Amino acid sequence: MSIRLSERVPVKYLFEEGKLGNEYVVAGWVDAVRIHGGVVFVILRDRSGKIQIVAKKNVARSAWENAKELSVESVIAVRGELVSSKAALGGRELLAKELVVLSRADPLPIDIKDYEKTVLAKRLDWRYLDLRNPRNLTIFLIEAEMARAAREWFYSHDFVEIFTSKIVGAATEGGAEVFSIVYFDKPAFLAQSPQLYKQLGVIAGFEKVFEIGPAFRAEPHHTTRHLTEYTSLDLEMGFIDSYEDVMNVVEDLIKYMVSKAIAKYKSEIEEYFPNAIADLPKKVPRITIREAYKLLEQAGMKVEWGEDLGTEAERKLGEIIEKEYGSPLVFVVEYPWRVRPFYTMRKPDEPEWTLSFDLLFRGLEIATGGQREHRYEVLKRQLEEKGLNPKNFEWYLNMFRYGAPPHGGAGIGLERVVMQALGLPNIREARLLPRDPERLVP
Amino acid sequence: MSIRLSERVPVKYLFEEGKLGNEYVVAGWVDAVRIHGGVVFVILRDRSGKIQIVAKKNVARSAWENAKELSVESVIAVRGELVSSKAALGGRELLAKELVVLSRADPLPIDIKDYEKTVLAKRLDWRYLDLRNPRNLTIFLIEAEMARAAREWFYSHDFVEIFTSKIVGAATEGGAEVFSIVYFDKPAFLAQSPQLYKQLGVIAGFEKVFEIGPAFRAEPHHTTRHLTEYTSLDLEMGFIDSYEDVMNVVEDLIKYMVSKAIAKYKSEIEEYFPNAIADLPKKVPRITIREAYKLLEQAGMKVEWGEDLGTEAERKLGEIIEKEYGSPLVFVVEYPWRVRPFYTMRKPDEPEWTLSFDLLFRGLEIATGGQREHRYEVLKRQLEEKGLNPKNFEWYLNMFRYGAPPHGGAGIGLERVVMQALGLPNIREARLLPRDPERLVP
Repeated sequence: MSIRLSERVPVKYLFEEGKLGNEYVVAGWVDAVRIHGGVVFVILRDRSGKIQIVAKKNVARSAWENAKELSVESVIAVRGELVSSKAALGGRELLAKELVVLSRADPLPIDIKDYEKTVLAKRLDWRYLDLRNPRNLTIFLIEAEMARAAREWFYSHDFVEIFTSKIVGAATEGGAEVFSIVYFDKPAFLAQSPQLYKQLGVIAGFEKVFEIGPAFRAEPHHTTRHLTEYTSLDLEMGFIDSYEDVMNVVEDLIKYMVSKAIAKYKSEIEEYFPNAIADLPKKVPRITIREAYKLLEQAGMKVEWGEDLGTEAERKLGEIIEKEYGSPLVFVVEYPWRVRPFYTMRKPDEPEWTLSFDLLFRGLEIATGGQREHRYEVLKRQLEEKGLNPKNFEWYLNMFRYGAPPHGGAGIGLERVVMQALGLPNIREARLLPRDPERLVP
Repeated sequence: MSIRLSERVPVKYLFEEGKLGNEYVVAGWVDAVRIHGGVVFVILRDRSGKIQIVAKKNVARSAWENAKELSVESVIAVRGELVSSKAALGGRELLAKELVVLSRADPLPIDIKDYEKTVLAKRLDWRYLDLRNPRNLTIFLIEAEMARAAREWFYSHDFVEIFTSKIVGAATEGGAEVFSIVYFDKPAFLAQSPQLYKQLGVIAGFEKVFEIGPAFRAEPHHTTRHLTEYTSLDLEMGFIDSYEDVMNVVEDLIKYMVSKAIAKYKSEIEEYFPNAIADLPKKVPRITIREAYKLLEQAGMKVEWGEDLGTEAERKLGEIIEKEYGSPLVFVVEYPWRVRPFYTMRKPDEPEWTLSFDLLFRGLEIATGGQREHRYEVLKRQLEEKGLNPKNFEWYLNMFRYGAPPHGGAGIGLERVVMQALGLPNIREARLLPRDPERLVP
């Protein structure tokens, strides 16, 4: 092959000014082929876009011969001259001088153009083909951009990235939703969250930490909102005055992530995601869970005082807040002690409520956080009150005996943010390789 | 408490110009306390540095009373006036007007100042105290900076970040070094690397992908170089001409990561890490493994032709290359087929060697990579030749039937890069919460 792939340019580049009349190398997947006797039209697709390739028998016979045998989704490299063309997409096409097949595709098992024809489970079986549809690929470009923007935000606010262990010696928060591992001859588990370790980070002296990494939940449920493995965006910060400081951080961070991503992929979002969010509110409303109970009751949905909000209540509350405040985001604060984990700080004068919050985005919880109890004696009592064995948390409890600043933090589900920002119907669409009780492959 | 922590400034800030004479709030850990009658001197430490606090009975009685009861490593917040002082570190001290104890520390179980007095295993048991020593904390500030720099490099070179699943349905590369998970009623494992999934990313159309995430190896060995969980910096790129393209990327990336980090933490490295690397070579030498065999034999160490390099051989080779080329880094290329995984591309004319490489840093493998076999029939044969069951790799093999560009990539062990850059004696020092066959806590 005489085409050097190192000379390759992205397709998008060919539509810039000053490029016409020059020779270029492009490479990518065959989106479509049409044969008209001595001329073959090929649409070549790469991550950046699509361009028409024209292979003419009387210009470059070997390129034409290769082109007329092409199957869709084969990988090709082309060297050609960029010329203008009224008929071609974007007004330009590449007149092939060389065209080589790098990898020949068999007939496809699913329709990747009309992806909705295929049920999601089958699309996921063929994920690498499903993503050949630019709409589906774009979801993950947006996810990557949100992660990038989040880190940018963290760096500029003096948070230090930490890498905590996902293999743990005890279940983080108790409960049954934990996967066991065969760890040599010891019992071990997969971390449900880096909760205890990000607190360790603060107390060790990093002061403000973040981590973007996998979290594992042995949820046996099949819903459109749950995964057994997801990407958790965690933060923890020391020296806070109150859990309001944490909410301020989460609000600023989420706005930054989402607005950066929707700005960068504006045209793709307009093309592919009709239900995407258009704008974020200037200020996210904050209501206590007691106010939420009242609003829900007024709307005809009764949640018992002191109970958690379920899926339906969250959805309903999202609608109410959207209508009342014009905001797709809402912080619900002061969750009941009985539904929050042992490390949550309680309200000083009303210990049945806590200094904690959930952030709902279009009626779905995307973040949860609050201030943590940093007083050793109180923490120990709370652990016992939750029925946990202090022995299993010995190292954790000890941490609070040697200087622990007041601190708080939050965990954000990255896939949920993407799902709600784009208005996707199922969280599996926002996860490259989703895991649920049935799915382990690919 | 009347001190608002939101007004807090980092200690470092107080040593900038134009600050003397003003009032500031600082907060952090008590590094030391000295009592001289009506005056208490406290050294306060935060992530950014240390400053002397002076609490005088005749200036602020309550601050003085609190100060004289302080224990080391307690967390305090101080409001005071910044004044110059010949005796104080950096020529400045904070004259306390208010001093409050946020968290009182018990006597410490380990000596955190003279950390070398304590064996590493015990330091790790008390990791959050061990890190109160600025030398130990700095290791992780450097690690975070390397990760930040790596991402910066990836973004500017058009790599897309992906988040792959760590729960997998089959062992990635075969072999026994894999952890089993109890996954509902199915057999499942922890990913040894994102190898197959980053290839999926390339083939799905991301073209160039990276991931920085956990990798798991059920290595029963106790060495100073192995962890059962580590942070793997993975990259994979499509449309390559040769595995040299991958080496160019790895070389550029490693230089960028390491040089950014050692530049940012220059003074800390000079203070704490006498064995740290000073400079990186302009060009990293590349030698075939056959040349390596010869060099080793000349130096009196015989490695069988066609065998892998062991720990001792790598160390020796590092010394030879340092002496011959003046480079702490060396690429060893064309590893024997029999010691490389099934997906490795073989040398066209000499199939007993492969288009693969390891990168050694001061005699330790820090990266491994190469070109991958993307031709379906060849890949299937190689899988069988390695004694693996094609059934377990069905989805993976199928990927190569629908258009797979030539591609390659590499995996880099982040902790090993940090360890070798700083000249640390044990990889556990470069892992926040190390896991080995004995260690699951904290």
